[in-house]
Amino acid sequence: MNFLSLLDKACKKNDSLLCVGLDVDLGKTGHGTSSVTDSIFDFNKKVIDETASYVCAYKPNIAFYEMYGIEGLQALIKTIEYISDDIPVILDAKRGDIGHTAQAYAKSVFDVFKADAVTVNPYLGYDSLEPFINYKDKGVFVLCLTSNKGSSDFQIPQQDEEPLYMHVAKHVKKWNVNENCGLVVGATNAQMLKDVRSEAGNMPILIPGVGAQGGDLESSVKYGITKDRNRAIINSSRGIIYADKPGIEAKRLRDEINRYR
Amino acid sequence: MNFLSLLDKACKKNDSLLCVGLDVDLGKTGHGTSSVTDSIFDFNKKVIDETASYVCAYKPNIAFYEMYGIEGLQALIKTIEYISDDIPVILDAKRGDIGHTAQAYAKSVFDVFKADAVTVNPYLGYDSLEPFINYKDKGVFVLCLTSNKGSSDFQIPQQDEEPLYMHVAKHVKKWNVNENCGLVVGATNAQMLKDVRSEAGNMPILIPGVGAQGGDLESSVKYGITKDRNRAIINSSRGIIYADKPGIEAKRLRDEINRYR
Repeated sequence: MNFLSLLDKACKKNDSLLCVGLDVDLGKTGHGTSSVTDSIFDFNKKVIDETASYVCAYKPNIAFYEMYGIEGLQALIKTIEYISDDIPVILDAKRGDIGHTAQAYAKSVFDVFKADAVTVNPYLGYDSLEPFINYKDKGVFVLCLTSNKGSSDFQIPQQDEEPLYMHVAKHVKKWNVNENCGLVVGATNAQMLKDVRSEAGNMPILIPGVGAQGGDLESSVKYGITKDRNRAIINSSRGIIYADKPGIEAKRLRDEINRYR
Repeated sequence: MNFLSLLDKACKKNDSLLCVGLDVDLGKTGHGTSSVTDSIFDFNKKVIDETASYVCAYKPNIAFYEMYGIEGLQALIKTIEYISDDIPVILDAKRGDIGHTAQAYAKSVFDVFKADAVTVNPYLGYDSLEPFINYKDKGVFVLCLTSNKGSSDFQIPQQDEEPLYMHVAKHVKKWNVNENCGLVVGATNAQMLKDVRSEAGNMPILIPGVGAQGGDLESSVKYGITKDRNRAIINSSRGIIYADKPGIEAKRLRDEINRYR
C-alpha cells in the first residue's frame, strides 16, 4: 500500500490526526540495569501499546537514537518493527545530500530502518530529493518552515519575491509527480501555515511544535487541514511520551484536535 | 588540540590540502565471505594505510555506512578509531535539526562516532548549528554551495540581494565566535568559490566535487585557498579509493594540488 493510503486509513480508523514523536531521552528517564537498547525499546513499547488506538502515525527522530550509537539504533529498528503495519512510521531524519549519496540515505531509511516515510532537507535541491521520491510507495516530507527561532535566518527572508519556505512549497508541489510528497511546517505561525496549505493542495503537512514548543493547537489544526479536513499530521513528542499516562494524554490531545477539525 | 590547529598541522606535516572521502560501496567492490563490517573496514584500512602520508584529512560520508545498517555503522566507528590522531576526520553527515535535536546529533557525531569535524545543513538557521559550534575543539563545516545541479533550486537564487549561498557564508562568518566554523563549497563554479573565499576570511573551505563530479582542480585550489595558501580542503573520494593504487593516486593528486597552490 502506498504511504498516502496507509496514512488516510490510519487517520480514519483511529479518527485521528495525532502523531506521536518517539524521542526518548534516557537522561530524563534513566535506564536502571537494562541495556540501552532494551531501555529505549521498553519505553517506546509502553508508549506505543498505550497510544496505538489514538494516533495516525508515529515519528521517531533518529537523532535521539544515534546519540546512543549502535545500541540506540538497534532500539530504533526494534521500535519500527514493533509498530503495527497499519500505522505509518515517519522517520524524522532531515536527510539531504547530492544524488549518489541521497540514494544511500534512501536505502538506509526505507530498506534498513524500514520507515514508511522520511523527513528531508531541501537545501540541496531536486536531485537530492529524487532518490527518496523514487520510492513511490514511501512518503517524503520536505522541510518547509520550521518551528525554531533560526527559521528567520534563511527560510523566511524573500527569495524570488516570496519567502524561501513558500518557494520550497511551490517546488515540492511541482516535484510531487508520484503523489508521495508532503511538507513540514512548524506550528508556531498560523498565517504562514495557512499560506503553505493554500499552496500545497492535498499534500499532507506534518506539523511539529505544538505542546513543548508552544505552537497554538487550534490554528495548527484549522489552517493545516485540507478542505475535507484531513492530511494535517499534528505531532506531539515530549507532551505525550513523558505524561504519567501516555494513552490518556494521547486520547485527550486527539479529541482536542478533532474539536478544531 | 582544537580542530583548526589539528588541520593546519596535518596540512603542514604532509604538505597537503588533499582530503580523501571514505565512501566505499560494497556493490562495487564486493565482500566475498567476510562480514559487511570487516569488508568495509578492511577496504578503508588499506586505503588509509596507503594514503596517510599524503592527506590533510579523511572524510567518511555517513550515508554509505548507514545504508548497511548496524554493521555499516560499526565499520564507521572502527574506521575512525583506526585513523591516526594526527589526521582530522570530517564526518560528512549534513545534519540539521532544531536545537534540542541538534544537541543529540552533536553528541552522536562527536561523542559516539568521535569525529573531529562535521558537515551541517544551514536551512534551519543558527540555533540548529549552535550545539555543534559549542563543541569548541571540533570543526563545523556549514553547507554553502553544493556541486550538484539542484544547487540552482534554492542556493543560487537571490535572497536579501545576494544569492542564498552568500547569505549563508556571511552568517557563518558572524557565527564563528569559537573559530571552529568552515564552509562547504563545491568545486563546480570557480567564480562563486572566489566570491565565498573573499567573504570567508581565513575560515577553512571544504571543496568536494573534483574528479568524479567534474570540478576543475586548478581553479578550485587557486580560488579556494587563503592568502597564505592554506585552508582549502580538496576532497576526492571515488577517484582515489577505487584507484588500482590509492597511495600513488593520492600522492599524484596532492602534488598536482600543490602545483596550483
